[in-house]
Amino acid sequence: MDAASIINVIRRADGDEDDDQDPALQELYSSWALFILLVLLIGALLTSYYVQSKKIRAIHETVISVFVGMVVGLIIRVSPGLIIQNMVSFHSTYFFNVLLPPIILNSGYELHQSNFFRNIGTILTFAFAGTFISAVTLGILVYIFSFLNFENFHMSFVEALSMGATLSATDPVTVLAIFNSYRVDQKLYTIIFGESILNDAVAIVMFETLQKFQGKQLHLFTLFNGITIFIITFFVSLLIGVSVGLMTALLLKYSYLRRYPHIESCIILLMAYASYFFSNGCHMSGVVSLLFCGITLKHYAFYNMSYKAKLSTKYVFRVLAQLSENFIFIYLGMSLFTQVDLVYKPIFILITTIAVTASRYMNVFPLSKLMNKFHRQKDGTLIDHIPYSYQMMLFWAGLRGAVGVALAAGFEGENAQTLKATTLVVVVLTLIIFGGTTSRMLEILNIETGVAADVDSDTEFSMLPWQATADYDLENGAMELSNASLDSPAAAPDRPIVPDDYENVEVFSEASPSKKISNTFEQYQRAAGAFNHFFHASRDDQAQWFSRFDEEVIKPVLLERDVSKSSPRK
Amino acid sequence: MDAASIINVIRRADGDEDDDQDPALQELYSSWALFILLVLLIGALLTSYYVQSKKIRAIHETVISVFVGMVVGLIIRVSPGLIIQNMVSFHSTYFFNVLLPPIILNSGYELHQSNFFRNIGTILTFAFAGTFISAVTLGILVYIFSFLNFENFHMSFVEALSMGATLSATDPVTVLAIFNSYRVDQKLYTIIFGESILNDAVAIVMFETLQKFQGKQLHLFTLFNGITIFIITFFVSLLIGVSVGLMTALLLKYSYLRRYPHIESCIILLMAYASYFFSNGCHMSGVVSLLFCGITLKHYAFYNMSYKAKLSTKYVFRVLAQLSENFIFIYLGMSLFTQVDLVYKPIFILITTIAVTASRYMNVFPLSKLMNKFHRQKDGTLIDHIPYSYQMMLFWAGLRGAVGVALAAGFEGENAQTLKATTLVVVVLTLIIFGGTTSRMLEILNIETGVAADVDSDTEFSMLPWQATADYDLENGAMELSNASLDSPAAAPDRPIVPDDYENVEVFSEASPSKKISNTFEQYQRAAGAFNHFFHASRDDQAQWFSRFDEEVIKPVLLERDVSKSSPRK
Repeated sequence: MDAASIINVIRRADGDEDDDQDPALQELYSSWALFILLVLLIGALLTSYYVQSKKIRAIHETVISVFVGMVVGLIIRVSPGLIIQNMVSFHSTYFFNVLLPPIILNSGYELHQSNFFRNIGTILTFAFAGTFISAVTLGILVYIFSFLNFENFHMSFVEALSMGATLSATDPVTVLAIFNSYRVDQKLYTIIFGESILNDAVAIVMFETLQKFQGKQLHLFTLFNGITIFIITFFVSLLIGVSVGLMTALLLKYSYLRRYPHIESCIILLMAYASYFFSNGCHMSGVVSLLFCGITLKHYAFYNMSYKAKLSTKYVFRVLAQLSENFIFIYLGMSLFTQVDLVYKPIFILITTIAVTASRYMNVFPLSKLMNKFHRQKDGTLIDHIPYSYQMMLFWAGLRGAVGVALAAGFEGENAQTLKATTLVVVVLTLIIFGGTTSRMLEILNIETGVAADVDSDTEFSMLPWQATADYDLENGAMELSNASLDSPAAAPDRPIVPDDYENVEVFSEASPSKKISNTFEQYQRAAGAFNHFFHASRDDQAQWFSRFDEEVIKPVLLERDVSKSSPRK
Repeated sequence: MDAASIINVIRRADGDEDDDQDPALQELYSSWALFILLVLLIGALLTSYYVQSKKIRAIHETVISVFVGMVVGLIIRVSPGLIIQNMVSFHSTYFFNVLLPPIILNSGYELHQSNFFRNIGTILTFAFAGTFISAVTLGILVYIFSFLNFENFHMSFVEALSMGATLSATDPVTVLAIFNSYRVDQKLYTIIFGESILNDAVAIVMFETLQKFQGKQLHLFTLFNGITIFIITFFVSLLIGVSVGLMTALLLKYSYLRRYPHIESCIILLMAYASYFFSNGCHMSGVVSLLFCGITLKHYAFYNMSYKAKLSTKYVFRVLAQLSENFIFIYLGMSLFTQVDLVYKPIFILITTIAVTASRYMNVFPLSKLMNKFHRQKDGTLIDHIPYSYQMMLFWAGLRGAVGVALAAGFEGENAQTLKATTLVVVVLTLIIFGGTTSRMLEILNIETGVAADVDSDTEFSMLPWQATADYDLENGAMELSNASLDSPAAAPDRPIVPDDYENVEVFSEASPSKKISNTFEQYQRAAGAFNHFFHASRDDQAQWFSRFDEEVIKPVLLERDVSKSSPRK
């Protein structure tokens, strides 16, 4: 839990001084520090509730958390003594091992799968090409500034590019919360969500790659070397994440773990975390692994879970992510005042803020134009066209967030404090300026709102309340007759929503493992046939190749029952 | 999350040596250490799943976790180098701030309320008088042994009593899991569950009280002083926990937080933790506060929560508790080999094991006899009679667990390592001996099994799947017409289970705050009338006074709607 991590953050932070203190006193201090932190979190959540309930859309939760943090930071700054000031100092490692994983995992898990795969081309273009353009543009602009030698400040080109990568990770939290409350068009929502979670991963890998060239001479070979490292890191990490996700799906398929939902939920959570730490241990990117593990878990393993595990993984991931997010933003606001060694250079901050905006512009508009042109050439009609209003909104949604601040904490050398301070201020500025005007911008751009949300597979609707009954009984070792009527959907013919994964949940009471294995052989045969079919299919079919390959080849192998037949999903 | 806490445990543990190491290397080590820990947890869970699915009831999850830990501990012990050995060392503060809270909170939250209050007299007698008898008997036996001066070992009487308190906290996990799978009679289940969670709290407060007299001269005044401190600590802590729970209930009643279930769930979790740290900060017992906060939250606040928050708090608490439990037992097994400075004194261990069994005997049987006599005298019939088989089972269920080990970590002075080692071994022995034979004992004692579980208010049944629909829509800002038919129970007349808190969930769409306040005034008037009624009621009624007072006075004030009318609960 989050509270737990906070203790340790605090413990660790004041560990050095307190080793000679009375342990009972230390215990008492940490209890109070934790209590205050919890009260801050509660305060931020309640304020954000109040603001939301009053329909004040200009101010969002994240901005409130930042402000709460700033107020407390200011109080701590002016109050005497260093004990509390030391308590709130923070290692970037905690960010990466404690606070970030739940957020990333939840992003992957909450991703609206069908829309994501429908817009995958656009999203990948923005995430890869876009983040590269943004980082390089920002890096060059910042480097030029440092070359002009205002404020007696000079940085290397690698440092400038690192700064570019740091500030290219956009934050989805604020914008998407506003989009959610306005029910913005699903396509725009999906593009922004997909882009912002993937570009976090791209920016992190890029930053880590650049750190390897810190202080070295640069030439053309370095560039290729860097790109190779980047590509290997990204795709090996992706592979790790996807493999762990698939392993989990198979484990759930070939076991009766769903009879013990408490064990099942814990194992799913632990598997996801294992992918994160395994990937980090292999010098790969844990964030990328965790993200794709989350996506794979949701795309495959989810259908093999029991009703209880579906709900509990969803809720556990969400609550942990929510707490981590709020903590990060409170901390962010607090840092502005409590990190005494930060060096603020006003002109550099101003230039960086402008450069951030410019680099976002250079990323969104040219890429959108290119994609629009490409789509038009292909078949005359305007498939996947990105209208101007969407482009403008994409540009506007380029808030910077917590990932940037965490990356900045990794800066070393004489410029470190300046770069950290600049990142911190720029992030808070973009949060306030862009976050505060998103809802106004939606109105100005006349973007369609109030769209009915797709009833996606991840809502409670499809989680079968009457299946839950069957599940519950079996978990307790026997089927109660009084509830038997609930077990068949025929007992509730007037139910308007018929969940699409009905077949693959209520399962284990009938199928024996041996029967399953023979079924599996048939599935493989069918899958092989489908596989052949694809490579002789028309060009039109291949445009949708992933979705169909997935439905007809992968899902039959991985899922408990073939969901593709009864499923309206694509 | 638990993984997070583990990192910090490890980080902290090797913090002293690693400050001069390369931080990247340190990062790498901790990633691997964490990965290994996660794999251990997954392994323990999977083994326990396997054992459960093969219906091997003699071996339970906790015992498996202990064994997994022992195997790994042995490997670590024989492998060269101290890095990993240092990584797994563990501060008792982490136990108390990170691992224990989720377990305690979940115990309180999962408590079967109606059965608990029905047997509250028996439970309180065992928890208070029983734990006192057990601690004092154990303390005296251990003190006598140390007086005989075998093994060159002498301890003070306060130390002996502390040891008694440490080993009087019984562990519910193993026994109750077995009871659950056998569907043992609810009354026996509730008595054992209630006793074991309350006696943890009693033992902790007792231990802490005793620590204040460590090394001081003892006389009669000290005894009274100690009892006073104990009573104050216990009841002030209880008050803190109950107050926070009631505050949360009122907050949920007088706000529209249920429209934002993600904020709601986080606030409930944070409030519970705040009670824990506030209580610790005030030199009170956080465990007692958290336990009663959990009970209060479930008893009142639960009915004011949205459907999503009900589910998510339940699942979040449960998953965190499950992970903490498994981690503790793995750690327990590991400690036997990795804690190099422990001093094992075989005779003392043997004597303590015997003393633990004897003290449990002295606690269960005389108290049961006393209560049976008392109950019989009262009205001739055998209300609340505890049959011999139940007494024997209560005696057998006296496993010692994680709380004891954590308390033992607080021992100081020259005997500390001996006392820690002894506690560790005794706990593992009771887990294996008593835990391994519980199911056999159930058969020998001919205790009724296969009893249909009461459909309690905390199952998913009562959480209204069709209400969830309304909830979902409102959360998204509009009511969809297509689902409107789901909102009324009339649309599903053939549903056999009509949840009892139907009225108080679907609420906020109609009642305005001003209307609520006038309603509240009426409620207060009604409550005052009911209050008067009690004190003129017959003696028979007063036996059930708490339940009725609760239903007619407290619930109308605290809950969104008066659930007492439609509720079959008592």
